[in-house]
Amino acid sequence: MTAPEALHWSAENCTIARALDEIGDRWSLLVLREIFQGIRRFDDITVRTAIPRQVLSERLRRLVAIGVLRREPYRAEGQRRRHEYRLTAKGIDLYPVFMALQQWGDNYLADPVGPAREFIHRDCGQHLDLVLRCRAGHEVADNRQVSGRPGPGARSRTPA
Amino acid sequence: MTAPEALHWSAENCTIARALDEIGDRWSLLVLREIFQGIRRFDDITVRTAIPRQVLSERLRRLVAIGVLRREPYRAEGQRRRHEYRLTAKGIDLYPVFMALQQWGDNYLADPVGPAREFIHRDCGQHLDLVLRCRAGHEVADNRQVSGRPGPGARSRTPA
Repeated sequence: MTAPEALHWSAENCTIARALDEIGDRWSLLVLREIFQGIRRFDDITVRTAIPRQVLSERLRRLVAIGVLRREPYRAEGQRRRHEYRLTAKGIDLYPVFMALQQWGDNYLADPVGPAREFIHRDCGQHLDLVLRCRAGHEVADNRQVSGRPGPGARSRTPA
Repeated sequence: MTAPEALHWSAENCTIARALDEIGDRWSLLVLREIFQGIRRFDDITVRTAIPRQVLSERLRRLVAIGVLRREPYRAEGQRRRHEYRLTAKGIDLYPVFMALQQWGDNYLADPVGPAREFIHRDCGQHLDLVLRCRAGHEVADNRQVSGRPGPGARSRTPA
């Protein structure tokens, strides 16, 4: 057997790995899930996630540093000024990642009664799906029809 | 200010959290990335990921246990029988998760020359995109048009 073709290519500049380096840990993704659902304040984020406060602090700082969240001041009556966390454009563009995770979860891991939450099109209120479509216009319903190939940034791997 | 609406709902049966519990750690996702690219053997998987062997062993066992991978025996000439790892249907259905991660990574984290890899439609060889479409037939190009709401399985949260 010859070596798999992908082994000839470097994974150094793989953007999946880079995306995972930024947001690919369970806590970051759960924090983002809450913020996507409009839960934007430190104490509120601890309610449904049971995330340790120190971990939450660190994750929020990091998500701000990489430009996925921004801090916005607010002041509740009679209290000192605090901050809430809002998605930046880069953060909002993570929606398809959550949709893909939930679609898979809904297919394989949902309760019999159905998913606890659904994505909708804000304008018209209808359920929103992720669709795979190629540039020849074909819709791909069967994921076995997906494949990959080196792109313009592909680099040869230097064998160790 | 009233509490965010999502706080009224339980996240106990959230399928995003369940999906993350199964495959949402960086190593599992990187191992799956390799297998999606046809790199199916233990030693080969260590080449581009630098994953510690013990971690790889544990992750492969777990990915088999949850039904995302299956083990298939092979025997290289003159060697003892070994196993390679192949995606099950449940595993192949993770393709959109990787596409979503890569699409985001390509937008925000790719080298100027472009992405190292692209997804294609196996049948016709054309580049494959993830598209958001609602059930009224609208295509949603702007992720700010995505929202969420409780689904059929939504449960009220019992306040602590």
